[in-house]
Amino acid sequence: MSRVLSVQSHVAFGYVGGKAAVFPLQCLGYDVDVVNTVNFSNHSGYGRFGGSKADAEELTRIFGLMAQNGLLRSERLLTGYIPSGEALAAVKDMATKLREANPELIYLLDPVLGDAGQLYVAPSVIPVYRAMLPLSTIITPNWFEVEVLTDVKIENMSTLRKALKILHDEHKVPNIVMSSIPLKPWLKAALPSRSRTPPGSEPSDEDFLLCISSSQNQTGDDAPSIVHAGRVPYISGYFSGVGDLFSAFVVAHYKPTSPILQTNSKPLDTASGETALSRAVSAALTKTHAMLLLTNEYAQQLPEEERQPTDDEADEKEADRRVRRMKGRELRLIQGQDIIRGTQKATERRMDLWAGFWTS
Amino acid sequence: MSRVLSVQSHVAFGYVGGKAAVFPLQCLGYDVDVVNTVNFSNHSGYGRFGGSKADAEELTRIFGLMAQNGLLRSERLLTGYIPSGEALAAVKDMATKLREANPELIYLLDPVLGDAGQLYVAPSVIPVYRAMLPLSTIITPNWFEVEVLTDVKIENMSTLRKALKILHDEHKVPNIVMSSIPLKPWLKAALPSRSRTPPGSEPSDEDFLLCISSSQNQTGDDAPSIVHAGRVPYISGYFSGVGDLFSAFVVAHYKPTSPILQTNSKPLDTASGETALSRAVSAALTKTHAMLLLTNEYAQQLPEEERQPTDDEADEKEADRRVRRMKGRELRLIQGQDIIRGTQKATERRMDLWAGFWTS
Repeated sequence: MSRVLSVQSHVAFGYVGGKAAVFPLQCLGYDVDVVNTVNFSNHSGYGRFGGSKADAEELTRIFGLMAQNGLLRSERLLTGYIPSGEALAAVKDMATKLREANPELIYLLDPVLGDAGQLYVAPSVIPVYRAMLPLSTIITPNWFEVEVLTDVKIENMSTLRKALKILHDEHKVPNIVMSSIPLKPWLKAALPSRSRTPPGSEPSDEDFLLCISSSQNQTGDDAPSIVHAGRVPYISGYFSGVGDLFSAFVVAHYKPTSPILQTNSKPLDTASGETALSRAVSAALTKTHAMLLLTNEYAQQLPEEERQPTDDEADEKEADRRVRRMKGRELRLIQGQDIIRGTQKATERRMDLWAGFWTS
Repeated sequence: MSRVLSVQSHVAFGYVGGKAAVFPLQCLGYDVDVVNTVNFSNHSGYGRFGGSKADAEELTRIFGLMAQNGLLRSERLLTGYIPSGEALAAVKDMATKLREANPELIYLLDPVLGDAGQLYVAPSVIPVYRAMLPLSTIITPNWFEVEVLTDVKIENMSTLRKALKILHDEHKVPNIVMSSIPLKPWLKAALPSRSRTPPGSEPSDEDFLLCISSSQNQTGDDAPSIVHAGRVPYISGYFSGVGDLFSAFVVAHYKPTSPILQTNSKPLDTASGETALSRAVSAALTKTHAMLLLTNEYAQQLPEEERQPTDDEADEKEADRRVRRMKGRELRLIQGQDIIRGTQKATERRMDLWAGFWTS
């Protein structure tokens, strides 16, 4: 196996950022170099949180010392929440050097910007992320982050295609993964049948979230990308760190069969309909969803006061109400480590080829 | 299983402090709350290293937020390298509160002071550690640290007994573990036969390190402690993070059968000759030594320039020489995770009862 350099937030209690990503990567056999962008007590969802942030100078010093010591040589790079444009620029410089030194570097860039229409980083971060996109191998934005990065409001298939095209062609991103997409009617109508119709006993389409992946087709510059889609049942309630865990699984399970930047490689296995990306995303969906089920099961059996539904007004009146809910919904990574390793099988969540994505 | 709060150093690259302790604890089923006392690029043995230190104020803020959020509730506490007296005092305040809230807290205090006659913390740390000893359940000092804490120079059985007595009686430490003790002639002569004579095919006594554990006998105040000893083969060369890994294994495998502070408990199982402490230490020796063997095997097969012997003069002339050696000797925790979990069996290293310790 190889090394992963993980650059993201650290919390003392609970599982978000590095705490959600590092242990799974280690379980899967990777040596992980861990640079903490913040050192906080717990995640911000608790309402009360704090600690220290690493500024650009500190990050640059740590990366510089690692480089001087010949320790900046990981084959994979994973970056997540980075709070300021300046700190992100320090990460960009390091990623640029890693990429220059190793064209086969596998860099999963999670452009953490916000969700559901709301930014939760400084706006100065956005142009830096845009400038970093050509360094990436895979990006894992959510719907909102794709809109912010491309300046395209996604409202139908045509704008969805446009956004992916901008990321692939203008920003030179080889692989895009968007997960946790609500199944809007126009999206549902366009999906290939396998991704649209759930097996008999399962709930209706409204109860699913969609994941879309898109791999640049390396047979020619103008060839459209290879798109896959997969569904996972929606679990109500907000769980933190899920995206960080998902990205860790994607980077861990991404196994390109040929150097990724080489042209004329064959990214699509025509027999299975899979790409290196869709295979990694299928594994990541499978394990992330199994971990969410395990966490939700645990949360459901807690005493009632520890599993109050999300209600900002009630939280406002009683700060501890929010804290109790958050605590009960921390990912059960330790208890689910056999799922991470794959020694305990989970229901497979598969990405299927969306053959007509660019033409229908 | 339960939670462990681990308070120690963090390095981006390699395995010392928290990086040596947290992953093993997680593999063994513990949720680990991780508070970083420093955030460095790599350990100091590389010569070039740096990053940031958490000061007392930052540690107090993080512990305070955790307490406010009801997240300071771990059943076990593990503290290691803490760079300043002020920062250590902040840890002391937190440990005092945890102990008051839970008399059954299992607190493994590793009083990191130095080794082989040299301090590597500020001297202001020493009185704070002395004041913290009564809070501990287990301490894991090395030989030098016992001497510093007790102000006793250990040169024979009588001074060894005196030092242990001071720790148990004056400082109220229930359980003491000293590992990596060179087998000096007077010590060898005093050892019970099982701990002294190695099986036929193994090397001579000089090639062993000794581990001594001592559990306060809770049947009465004046009763002498129950002492065990065990040997592990000496592996030449310096490996970093071994003590941190060992302490993590001790706290993970310590399973007292009755509340530990209760009097009239039966710490010695007369059938097996074991105590809860000696059992934990046997498991810790077994796994730590297997991990060292794995690491040494790896280091031995590296190209010659990456496995130069320790030589301060040669290092002085060429900084990268030291760096290459250190890198090749980083613990192979990830590759040895089956040893950590116990799914891959390692040669057992057993602590044996030293019945005549106090009387012979």
